[in-house]
Amino acid sequence: MLVRRPHFKQRCKTHLFSSNYLTQVIKCKAAIAWEAGKPLCIEEVEVAPPKAHEVRIKIIATSLCHTDATVIDSKFEGLSFPVIVGHEAAGIVESIGPEVTNFKPGDKVIPLYAPRCRKCKFCLSPLTNLCGKISNLKSPATDQQLMEDKTSRFTCKGKPVYHFLGVSTFSQYTVVSDINLVKIDDDANLERVCLLGCGFSTGYGAAINNAKVTPGSTCAVFGLGGVGLSAVIGCKMAGASRIIGVDINSEKFAKAKALGATECLNPRDLHKPVQEVIIELTKGGVDFALDCAGGSETMKAALDCTIAGWGTCTFIGVAAGSKGLTIFPEELIIGRTINGTFFGGWKSDSIPKLVTDYKNKKFNLDELVTHTLPFDKLSEAFDLMNQGKSIRTILTF
Amino acid sequence: MLVRRPHFKQRCKTHLFSSNYLTQVIKCKAAIAWEAGKPLCIEEVEVAPPKAHEVRIKIIATSLCHTDATVIDSKFEGLSFPVIVGHEAAGIVESIGPEVTNFKPGDKVIPLYAPRCRKCKFCLSPLTNLCGKISNLKSPATDQQLMEDKTSRFTCKGKPVYHFLGVSTFSQYTVVSDINLVKIDDDANLERVCLLGCGFSTGYGAAINNAKVTPGSTCAVFGLGGVGLSAVIGCKMAGASRIIGVDINSEKFAKAKALGATECLNPRDLHKPVQEVIIELTKGGVDFALDCAGGSETMKAALDCTIAGWGTCTFIGVAAGSKGLTIFPEELIIGRTINGTFFGGWKSDSIPKLVTDYKNKKFNLDELVTHTLPFDKLSEAFDLMNQGKSIRTILTF
Repeated sequence: MLVRRPHFKQRCKTHLFSSNYLTQVIKCKAAIAWEAGKPLCIEEVEVAPPKAHEVRIKIIATSLCHTDATVIDSKFEGLSFPVIVGHEAAGIVESIGPEVTNFKPGDKVIPLYAPRCRKCKFCLSPLTNLCGKISNLKSPATDQQLMEDKTSRFTCKGKPVYHFLGVSTFSQYTVVSDINLVKIDDDANLERVCLLGCGFSTGYGAAINNAKVTPGSTCAVFGLGGVGLSAVIGCKMAGASRIIGVDINSEKFAKAKALGATECLNPRDLHKPVQEVIIELTKGGVDFALDCAGGSETMKAALDCTIAGWGTCTFIGVAAGSKGLTIFPEELIIGRTINGTFFGGWKSDSIPKLVTDYKNKKFNLDELVTHTLPFDKLSEAFDLMNQGKSIRTILTF
Repeated sequence: MLVRRPHFKQRCKTHLFSSNYLTQVIKCKAAIAWEAGKPLCIEEVEVAPPKAHEVRIKIIATSLCHTDATVIDSKFEGLSFPVIVGHEAAGIVESIGPEVTNFKPGDKVIPLYAPRCRKCKFCLSPLTNLCGKISNLKSPATDQQLMEDKTSRFTCKGKPVYHFLGVSTFSQYTVVSDINLVKIDDDANLERVCLLGCGFSTGYGAAINNAKVTPGSTCAVFGLGGVGLSAVIGCKMAGASRIIGVDINSEKFAKAKALGATECLNPRDLHKPVQEVIIELTKGGVDFALDCAGGSETMKAALDCTIAGWGTCTFIGVAAGSKGLTIFPEELIIGRTINGTFFGGWKSDSIPKLVTDYKNKKFNLDELVTHTLPFDKLSEAFDLMNQGKSIRTILTF
């Protein structure tokens, strides 16, 4: 598919040009989850042209994260099938629908599952990056499965296919709402900044925007996958003087240390609960604990190891099927705070700035990328992730 | 017992004077909990003179709160018996031990279970009102049962009697550490400002210092006893525009409305969970929920009814024997915060200022006092509280 990059002055013409596409359906490759609990199948799909306030994107690079795997494992109650998952990607605008004013074909973009309508009470508040366009805040992962007009832009074998998180990036072309998209620098390396679509932004932002890690503080990060390592980077960037990484896979420790962890602990190598070890090491507990795993055990360890008085425990990971954490007022009244992060607390406007920060080497995304594979090898990428052998695998079309 | 009030210039003499008391034991009335689960008995006790950095106080007025009842109900694991409970009082300094520099006989004072050593990492931090002198932060209610030298100042029938929360106010005379005491205005009404020793300060401060209620915000307060009504006063003082009071005893609603609640709900009169009703009333939930009850149900209702994006749920009440609340990351990642309060977040230095604020009619303590009884009628006061017929009963000696 030819992507033309018109100059600014041609915007009007571009609009007409893109409108020409309105009748054109694109056939391309996508990974379909036909039903819950079954492996994804790479199929030929039809991607309809963008309607009003919609943008069709050519995905250049997409990564995968545990949320995608959770779908395959059939653990998200309420998700509709068949569905095209994937939500961490970067691409180039192929065409725009009517009334799209902020994008033009050729723009480099990152699709975002965190919409920004700029009109709802959430978007108008400086306190949150939520948007009222997510209609089911109790289950954001099963929301945005259809476009604004309650229809899908994907079909496969004659059947409509649901979107995922408003972005569906496991497809060579996808259609997103213009409020689920940001334009980034023309010279951005899409095979790296795709990570800003979820994992990096979430972990990094959780430390900076939600935990609000302070200079000289002590932190513990539970789970050293892509999100956890990004949280380590965030803690370091915020000036933490001590960052304790925790994972049951010691092979992740070298990378964690390279990115800022000052020490690492493997609960399986310890003779007592990891929270007790952390409390001893830090003489009372850490200022900030960030749980990127979301299971009952790590949630408990993260809360337990935060210091009385001012300790903040931030939940980042959601483990579908988790039994949660039972808390008692006694654990909070001694001065602890529990909060969480949605997309690292970033309003979408911040993402282009992060792309520029990466370009200016403010942080290191490269270390997070352990593998690059063609999209056809998606199944291999999942195996690498599930076996703990990869941090992030970039899939290219 | 004669209490002399020396002038400032006589401080040196005062010190000698008070030292004369060092050999004098005072016999007086106190309520003893001889063992867990048994009613308190009013007995004659011996109160030893204050040692170094200790102050002996004549209690003028003490109130009672559910924490005291919890001891009687035998629900605090780890509490040592026999014990003199009571922790919400005001009195007058009777004598001081060596090295006490901030108090002199005749000073009006409020004993505080929240110590302030001014030396530990907690006291030196602006982030908390905890003090490292509480050695067991996991169970503050069973801490401070002995003085610094690990002995008690109380005996009864030849047996040593434990202190409670470092203050033991159900005694005509008590001995406290000088870090568990604040001097207040000479003209303070002790039969009112005794409430600043716990209930009022806790509820009021929870709204202002921990929840940090903002002008124009919407609040829900669960439990409209003394602490809950104080939280209502705090929400109003912070400028909340809507304050929803919740209690299963509708008889408390008139007072709640007089103090600032804009509407009240009784969960027993509703056909669906109170949190659902609150979410409907507020079109999405409250900005601040304060739970003064501490049971599983109110904890859940409080968290559930806080709005996504920025809702803060503050736990104030601790219900001994509570099964706690099971939380899931999904409930936090949408932007909610959970925290708690210890003594309303006030460092003890703030309490004299609150006494002055009351004198200047900044808030209304009088409405919280429903009964005044002689100390001998302690048992009647507990009955009134347990039957939900009183907000606060003031006991006088």
